[in-house]
Amino acid sequence: MKNVLLHTPEGVRDIYNKECEQKEYLQQKIHNVLKKYGYHDMATPTFEFFDIFSKEKGTVESRQMYKFFDREGNTLVLRPDMTPPMARCVAKYYMEETMPIRLCYAGQSFINSAEHQGKLKERTQIGAELYGENKADADVETLAMMIEALLDCGLKEFQIEVGHALFFEGLLEEADLSEEEEEEIRILVANKNFFGLEEYLSDRKMKSDLKNVFLNLSELIGSGDMLARAKKMISNRKTDTALSRLEKVYKLLVCYGYEKYVSFDLSILAARNYYTGIIFAGYTYGTGDAIATGGRYDNLVKQFGKDTPSIGFAIDLDRLLLAMGRQKLEIPVEEKSIYLLYENGSQKEAIDMAGQYRKDRMSVTLVRRNNDFSMESYRKYARRTGFREMYYIRNASSHAEKTELE
Amino acid sequence: MKNVLLHTPEGVRDIYNKECEQKEYLQQKIHNVLKKYGYHDMATPTFEFFDIFSKEKGTVESRQMYKFFDREGNTLVLRPDMTPPMARCVAKYYMEETMPIRLCYAGQSFINSAEHQGKLKERTQIGAELYGENKADADVETLAMMIEALLDCGLKEFQIEVGHALFFEGLLEEADLSEEEEEEIRILVANKNFFGLEEYLSDRKMKSDLKNVFLNLSELIGSGDMLARAKKMISNRKTDTALSRLEKVYKLLVCYGYEKYVSFDLSILAARNYYTGIIFAGYTYGTGDAIATGGRYDNLVKQFGKDTPSIGFAIDLDRLLLAMGRQKLEIPVEEKSIYLLYENGSQKEAIDMAGQYRKDRMSVTLVRRNNDFSMESYRKYARRTGFREMYYIRNASSHAEKTELE
Repeated sequence: MKNVLLHTPEGVRDIYNKECEQKEYLQQKIHNVLKKYGYHDMATPTFEFFDIFSKEKGTVESRQMYKFFDREGNTLVLRPDMTPPMARCVAKYYMEETMPIRLCYAGQSFINSAEHQGKLKERTQIGAELYGENKADADVETLAMMIEALLDCGLKEFQIEVGHALFFEGLLEEADLSEEEEEEIRILVANKNFFGLEEYLSDRKMKSDLKNVFLNLSELIGSGDMLARAKKMISNRKTDTALSRLEKVYKLLVCYGYEKYVSFDLSILAARNYYTGIIFAGYTYGTGDAIATGGRYDNLVKQFGKDTPSIGFAIDLDRLLLAMGRQKLEIPVEEKSIYLLYENGSQKEAIDMAGQYRKDRMSVTLVRRNNDFSMESYRKYARRTGFREMYYIRNASSHAEKTELE
Repeated sequence: MKNVLLHTPEGVRDIYNKECEQKEYLQQKIHNVLKKYGYHDMATPTFEFFDIFSKEKGTVESRQMYKFFDREGNTLVLRPDMTPPMARCVAKYYMEETMPIRLCYAGQSFINSAEHQGKLKERTQIGAELYGENKADADVETLAMMIEALLDCGLKEFQIEVGHALFFEGLLEEADLSEEEEEEIRILVANKNFFGLEEYLSDRKMKSDLKNVFLNLSELIGSGDMLARAKKMISNRKTDTALSRLEKVYKLLVCYGYEKYVSFDLSILAARNYYTGIIFAGYTYGTGDAIATGGRYDNLVKQFGKDTPSIGFAIDLDRLLLAMGRQKLEIPVEEKSIYLLYENGSQKEAIDMAGQYRKDRMSVTLVRRNNDFSMESYRKYARRTGFREMYYIRNASSHAEKTELE
């Protein structure tokens, strides 16, 4: 009979043993990079008033949020996205600050998606937000931090796809389509269904230059050269703004030496409605989902009362861990541990010995001998669970006997 | 006009600036102690099925939990207590293990209390659980870890009050009262209303020896001597079990050298119904609430299908942080940070310089000069926000100019 009490709800999971220590290790590594770039920790509550994530904010759809009520009947939600709460905080605690503000966070976020099984509904995200700087310098600092964090974790092969929210907006604006048509095209492009897009546009009237851009969207991928090529294909206020910004971004990426990790892709769409400038997502082998995402959102914080340009990113720790596991990349977890078995009566000696090792930052597992178990079964246990050394204290006046386990 | 969007729900809060870094520091310190004692990380979901915390489990009352529904209509709750999920995990992942198991965790827990304002409803708890060892050795390892963790955080004056769930049970059993009477006495004792207890018992018939114990409960506090004194006052199966266990605990605490941090108190009652053996709570100045709690619960894991004795504790990070702040204890937060201001055109030089410092684990905040601000206003900002040094790169061919800020 299946014990129903052992189950976790759909889309959430337990993490244990080595995997849990590895996740902790990755979080620490990423956090260290954010600190080195001058970002300051901020922790917001796990749940907030629904209004923080309402439709105008441009975050996750309402039906994808976990909602409940407080004792006064207000609607609360488990935060589906860390950016709106951080925007709330910067407006609340830094209202008068005119200089750039750098904040970072790590925490759980929750999306109650109706998607197929296997998609995590609770995720640990660690990220950073830079407020008050509208220049490409800030865009690139964000990309550089993200790349450096992934490299420091030990990830070797990954690609950050960078686009700009205004490029596609510029195309749509010029195309002068109905709302329904825009939505259809948006869905086709979001799903990278370029064949479907071609078919959809085939019997639609449109300036041939513009249609040509739509039909070639899938090829507007690449490095600095591609941006120059795109500039010759289309020019309006929004696409010009997008392309010249991305050119600046490329130049500054070269200063960091990180251009090889970035590929521009003009067909990517904003994953959140609040994005207004560059948008990006990081991919690697072993998971189809982005391991990191981010973008510029210059109009969100204004909704909380402070008019300030902003950019941010977050790394999805669960996806990164999964991908690194599948790539068989080593995530070093400290293992300097000692198994110290003692007989009843030698507690004092065992505790003293453990205390000495622990002072030297060694991990000691103290186990009182249970005579139901043979010495051999203790040795087997210590070996199978990965201890490095085992000691046995037979009685208060004897020396600890050592067994090598490796 | 008050901007309602800036508010957080009742009982939860934002943590930022130094306080957030200090909380992170304390968590790291405590985690290091748990690792040194051989405990392994486990992370459970933020929400679970309601049944994990149902009445029989003996955890928080149902009306104090945040509840909501999944898409299938199951009741989910934000975990109000870390112990039942850990018990679920040990049954699920270690069902066949016969040796002791050591697990630790850090995470948010949520109690939707109706209590007065100011009580936090979301708390960060870090703790450890030891399964499969029913001896006093395990009780004392748990107490020692807790004491060592508090000391390593920098707390100096604190007291762990240790009692035993069976002592009071033994008194009640011998008193042979009605359920209502038991409940009334329990409430009086829980509130340490010993005057009320005296009044309540004054016109009740009871063996004079036993009544004497009830009337002297408030004095059954102290060290090893008190336990000997209590033994002479009362003797039944349960009180004998409790007292001789606490005597063993005392002896082993002396081995660790931690007896001075512990005070036995036979009047303390189990904070959770699942406690079956020693129970304890840590107090310090600056907060009336316990900063750490724990106890033995030998019958809980059985409810998840694995019959194993267990003991655990948790430190409440928010309360510890609060208390240490009020005690003006220093929580060292690393501050080796550099403010690097550059003019447009010197990005390459600024990025290179920042990269060098960051390689040496220094924190560098890169800021592009905005000509709306005077140099003096940048210096003022860097000083007021606690930077150690400031550099200014005027143009690509000039050296960085240094300003001391301290």
